[in-house]
Amino acid sequence: MRFFAVLGLMLLAGKFSGELVERLGQPAVLGELVAGIVLGSSVLRVIPTGAGDPLSPIIAFLAEIGVVVLLFEIGLETDLKAMARVGAPATAVALVGVAAPFLLGFLYWVSPLHAPAPSGDATTVAIFVGATLTATSVGITARVLSDLKRMDSTEARLILGAAVIDDVLGLVILGVVSGLAAGAAVSALGVVRTLAVAVGFLVAAVALGTALAPRIFGFVNRMRVRGVLLVSAFAFLLLLAALAARAGSALIIGAFAAGIILSGTNQFEIIEKGMKPVADIFTPLFFLSIGAAVNVRAWNPLNPENHGTLAVGGALFVIALLGKLVSGWAAPWRRFNRWAVGIGMAPRGEVGLIFAQIGLTAGVLSGGLFSAILLMVIGTTLVAPPLLKWALGRWGSTGATTDPEALVA
Amino acid sequence: MRFFAVLGLMLLAGKFSGELVERLGQPAVLGELVAGIVLGSSVLRVIPTGAGDPLSPIIAFLAEIGVVVLLFEIGLETDLKAMARVGAPATAVALVGVAAPFLLGFLYWVSPLHAPAPSGDATTVAIFVGATLTATSVGITARVLSDLKRMDSTEARLILGAAVIDDVLGLVILGVVSGLAAGAAVSALGVVRTLAVAVGFLVAAVALGTALAPRIFGFVNRMRVRGVLLVSAFAFLLLLAALAARAGSALIIGAFAAGIILSGTNQFEIIEKGMKPVADIFTPLFFLSIGAAVNVRAWNPLNPENHGTLAVGGALFVIALLGKLVSGWAAPWRRFNRWAVGIGMAPRGEVGLIFAQIGLTAGVLSGGLFSAILLMVIGTTLVAPPLLKWALGRWGSTGATTDPEALVA
Repeated sequence: MRFFAVLGLMLLAGKFSGELVERLGQPAVLGELVAGIVLGSSVLRVIPTGAGDPLSPIIAFLAEIGVVVLLFEIGLETDLKAMARVGAPATAVALVGVAAPFLLGFLYWVSPLHAPAPSGDATTVAIFVGATLTATSVGITARVLSDLKRMDSTEARLILGAAVIDDVLGLVILGVVSGLAAGAAVSALGVVRTLAVAVGFLVAAVALGTALAPRIFGFVNRMRVRGVLLVSAFAFLLLLAALAARAGSALIIGAFAAGIILSGTNQFEIIEKGMKPVADIFTPLFFLSIGAAVNVRAWNPLNPENHGTLAVGGALFVIALLGKLVSGWAAPWRRFNRWAVGIGMAPRGEVGLIFAQIGLTAGVLSGGLFSAILLMVIGTTLVAPPLLKWALGRWGSTGATTDPEALVA
Repeated sequence: MRFFAVLGLMLLAGKFSGELVERLGQPAVLGELVAGIVLGSSVLRVIPTGAGDPLSPIIAFLAEIGVVVLLFEIGLETDLKAMARVGAPATAVALVGVAAPFLLGFLYWVSPLHAPAPSGDATTVAIFVGATLTATSVGITARVLSDLKRMDSTEARLILGAAVIDDVLGLVILGVVSGLAAGAAVSALGVVRTLAVAVGFLVAAVALGTALAPRIFGFVNRMRVRGVLLVSAFAFLLLLAALAARAGSALIIGAFAAGIILSGTNQFEIIEKGMKPVADIFTPLFFLSIGAAVNVRAWNPLNPENHGTLAVGGALFVIALLGKLVSGWAAPWRRFNRWAVGIGMAPRGEVGLIFAQIGLTAGVLSGGLFSAILLMVIGTTLVAPPLLKWALGRWGSTGATTDPEALVA
């Protein structure tokens, strides 16, 4: 019973807050994040986040379905050929977008700039700090681009392509960092294997899927039972996501692959139409959950205890923004809105939170440093939507909705 | 990850099994129940049902969303005025459909027919046995009627009306029986209060809701954020269901009320259309879960240990069918397909399972008697869809899809 009430309140608060924010000219996802913070652990405590609450894992699973459905929708809308045309610049953007923040974060932590001087195993902590700065939350940027109806611009393809490559790299970094946290020696072989699994899964799934899916869904389409097509597509999405995770890749990589695969079937439009209400309900739960995880008390500037955390968090926030911003200039041979791409790579969202969580659980990150990293993650996540909107309005985007090829996709 | 795989497999198995059963000329819900049994605790063990599995409560919650969404859809399609026209016969059907099985079950248990003679506090056990026979699973019948496209017949309205009244009576019986199980004295005042709360909630919610909802949803309809109408309707459904449970009524009563209320708004069609894919995904989970709870091993006729259980279960099954069947003749002043109504009231579904579960937990029902009751519950649930289809085909239904008033509703 409480579960129903909590879910109902989350959805209502998300939508009304999203509406308010959209009326103020900002992307709706911002409203969902803020609604999550307000309903979350540190303010109203409506959304359960603690390990002791039996509802926490249920809300967490629903939120995970939300991000998986979101990535599926993005995959459905992805034009593989158009994506391939931005393959080289997207790879460049991703590589710079991972390397620059990592280096800046690492150097900041071991440098004399950081006061008080880091204690303990400074190198491990510095690697962790650098790692949390590398992630890109494709979910946030994709929602913003979709809220602004720019999903078929070159910038959107570049950002999404780079973000997916980022996720693959992120998995490798996560593997290395988890190993470090566990005190294990990091082997070059292990790194290469993680990378190969993630890339291999995506390539194999899409290649095999695009060959088989049109036949399978043609067969499903001849079935008569109510909703069989949509439910089959949804089940396909869940199974591919689970398979990706099983293969050592990530749920969202599988979901993205499922979307790309089904975009090549003849039943594509029915699936997209039916999936929309499902996404409308689940996706906000993901953004609300991100917001709910934030403890705003640790950021209260009136409490002197928080000043150190706020200073480190502020420094990491600036590093995080600058590190991703330069990735916009990573592919000088192509013309696009460099500010939009750099800003689009900035939100850390859930991926950054996962990194920080591992560091905290492993004892590598202190409570204060964890709060500072959260400040960076939430800061970049909250600041990116309005900045991206501004950058797109200021310098425009390449390839508009009127591009006939994009519409066919 | 396992959660995604389980969910995907459940949905696929449910749909494909439903398709197969529908091709065999039977309602799809039967296939979902059978798929649930096959994937369930006693055969393949894909669907987690045990208390030890962390996925069990999550699947249970999703199944609960499923039945709530189903009742909401039924409420949306309900024509209140047409329902009111069958108010008197529906009440008669419900009262006979509760009284007859209860008396028959009670008498069977205390009579010499039942061998070996019941031991312990035979009267309490007999009341429990009678109570588990009273429930009607509106979900199963509604799905069958909807699968057969007979939702706007007089028979459907009668069954649904009687089933809702049955649910209200069921809550009262549940309260009494739980009190008995806890060893408490049952007061007439408590019985009257439970009844008043359940009826009062339904009347108050529908009266207040139909007055306010058109304005509220007219306002929501002017909002611009993506999916706001559907998400608001879904949240309204969840909150009303939670409120109903809070007020001492049942989740499904609140969900049914939410559907009736929103059927009176101008946005009714958009809501119904958007809710369809959501129901397509969630509703099968409910029927799969019912099937998954069944331990088919206890029914193995080759094991002599099970013979007593099978004999009692068989007797209860016959009593359950006959007791509800006579309810079809409860309103002699109206003309309708009496066999269809009597059979439509027969499936015990989840409500019977809940009763049996309480009896087992409280120690009133022995393990053998519990298995026998489950046989009755699942038997009536499996047998009702094909029998209902047969009865409707044999004697037809009153008031067809061409009834203009029904189409307006």
